[in-house]
Amino acid sequence: MSDSRIETDVVIVGAGPVGLFAVFELGMLGLRAQLVDSLAGLGGQCQALYPEKPIYDIPGYPKILAGELIERLAEQAAPFQPGYHLEQRVETVQPTEAGRWRVVSSAGTEIDCGAVIVAAGVGAFGPNRPPLDGLYDYEGQGPGAGVHYLVSRREDFRDKRLVIAGGGDSALDWTLSLSDLAAKIYVVHRRDKFRAAPESVREMRRLADDPASPVELVVPYQLHGLSGEAGRLSGVDVATLEGEVRRLEADALLPFFGLSMNLGPIAEWGLDLERGSLKVDPAACETSTPGIYAIGDIASYPGKLKLILSGFSEAALAAHAIYARLNPDTPLHWEHSTTKGVPGFGA
Amino acid sequence: MSDSRIETDVVIVGAGPVGLFAVFELGMLGLRAQLVDSLAGLGGQCQALYPEKPIYDIPGYPKILAGELIERLAEQAAPFQPGYHLEQRVETVQPTEAGRWRVVSSAGTEIDCGAVIVAAGVGAFGPNRPPLDGLYDYEGQGPGAGVHYLVSRREDFRDKRLVIAGGGDSALDWTLSLSDLAAKIYVVHRRDKFRAAPESVREMRRLADDPASPVELVVPYQLHGLSGEAGRLSGVDVATLEGEVRRLEADALLPFFGLSMNLGPIAEWGLDLERGSLKVDPAACETSTPGIYAIGDIASYPGKLKLILSGFSEAALAAHAIYARLNPDTPLHWEHSTTKGVPGFGA
Repeated sequence: MSDSRIETDVVIVGAGPVGLFAVFELGMLGLRAQLVDSLAGLGGQCQALYPEKPIYDIPGYPKILAGELIERLAEQAAPFQPGYHLEQRVETVQPTEAGRWRVVSSAGTEIDCGAVIVAAGVGAFGPNRPPLDGLYDYEGQGPGAGVHYLVSRREDFRDKRLVIAGGGDSALDWTLSLSDLAAKIYVVHRRDKFRAAPESVREMRRLADDPASPVELVVPYQLHGLSGEAGRLSGVDVATLEGEVRRLEADALLPFFGLSMNLGPIAEWGLDLERGSLKVDPAACETSTPGIYAIGDIASYPGKLKLILSGFSEAALAAHAIYARLNPDTPLHWEHSTTKGVPGFGA
Repeated sequence: MSDSRIETDVVIVGAGPVGLFAVFELGMLGLRAQLVDSLAGLGGQCQALYPEKPIYDIPGYPKILAGELIERLAEQAAPFQPGYHLEQRVETVQPTEAGRWRVVSSAGTEIDCGAVIVAAGVGAFGPNRPPLDGLYDYEGQGPGAGVHYLVSRREDFRDKRLVIAGGGDSALDWTLSLSDLAAKIYVVHRRDKFRAAPESVREMRRLADDPASPVELVVPYQLHGLSGEAGRLSGVDVATLEGEVRRLEADALLPFFGLSMNLGPIAEWGLDLERGSLKVDPAACETSTPGIYAIGDIASYPGKLKLILSGFSEAALAAHAIYARLNPDTPLHWEHSTTKGVPGFGA
């Protein structure tokens, strides 16, 4: 999917809560924005990781679900008609001869813009993958797939032979949850100690000792290889540190090794980085490269708090700085939202 | 009303939106707060000046009435049980020998605290008073009072002889509004030009020319003195610049000279001021005096935007800085609101 060439005022990298609010702040100053995000939906971590978790520190909301906050922010941005380019990463950001920026995404979207705001949070994130040959061939969703990093529907695993790998809460919680419908569950971990809640560990060991339960503990073993044909998994090889290999007959592998978060291509843009964050001037949220701004969790300055509400304030600062940059001869006539109103809401 | 001596972690000067949110941010870090405000209710300007005005730039609220925002913020602060000291101004802030602060209000409230946050917006605000001897004796509310700075009930002025002073919209709007029930309305202004909407000026002049209307234009005159007995107004003296004095028989004076906003005693605390604002270090929102912080519209630093949402972020910065100041040996174990929860909401 290529949107071919687009021209806009600002490209926002990241459509999480802070990126969405930046659309509003830019819009109030008459600036248009296009957002690019690696996820398939809006909202970043709020929507992808914990949409039903309550948040208590959004000012004016004694309690709001993360997913609901995202809906409200998208609604607040909507009058300014942002363009959304989802499931793609920004690959390159290059200065143009006209003193603007050319942004190109992994999907081939090309945007010409006056400024870039990086609101990428912790960067693109996804599951930590075990280093196994042919892993991608078995990934997917639904009952047919062989490798799963999350369980969307328990029923997909009924009567299946499963290998669950990992020693943390996710591995053990799903072992317990699926033990009443799976045909077999091998719990593979590199040692006989688990980092999960003690109660879960006790219950898992009880099941492993119960001949009537499908749970079998396979420790200390690590994942070693996958067997199957035409994308259909038939077995998982595991090995001890000494190299002893054992074949587990299985229909599905569920590795729970946590989430990785990485900046991805952003780290290659030549901006000043400090422990994975972008250093900005706190007065304008501008990075070391004039015209590129950073806001939200990815931005770093003295006193920085990684709070959503701090990101909102940074979005306002960046929007005003960008206005001044793009309109050097037209000072802003400051009006409060109460006087000015918002398109579509009347004044 | 004296609360006698109170001990707390933080005194917040100003119970507007930003002061209220500071209670929450402090509370999340285990710090207690007491608020002092010159107004009779919570919410500062939002509640006192425009409770029914919609605000569009509170993140997550595409539109919210100012008064409703204040209700939500008060609800969000409530679990932390702040003390409210209303209708009083902070008069003095003095360091104690224990390295803390002693705050004394105009009502005699004395609070011993570890830090002070000034969230006073534009300062204490109220009507501009004309410089007339004995003015305070006639002020009050309801039909008995002689001097009124606002009209709460039109009926209070039925069949009364009124002096309305001023040349702006408030003076003219109330002249027009009360012209159908007052016995007499003298409109006193220092010149024969008015700063009000042209349509209102035309209508007022039409009434002044109409012998059947109670409106009489008294220009160019200024307020000169009040006559009356035992708090009951009987006349208003007005004078030209040349000193010619005229007595207007009147039951009530309504001066509409705008609102004054002034820092009041805060200007005397020895803090670094810059055009009526308090200069702060943007990383901590600390003023030039360690232990005294400023947030919201009264705070100034490079790039400062006078937005409520910026004040929210400053409240978080100040709360964290104060935590570090009051707990130098106990680094904060950072937890997000989603993990920690809030008292009264479960976890």
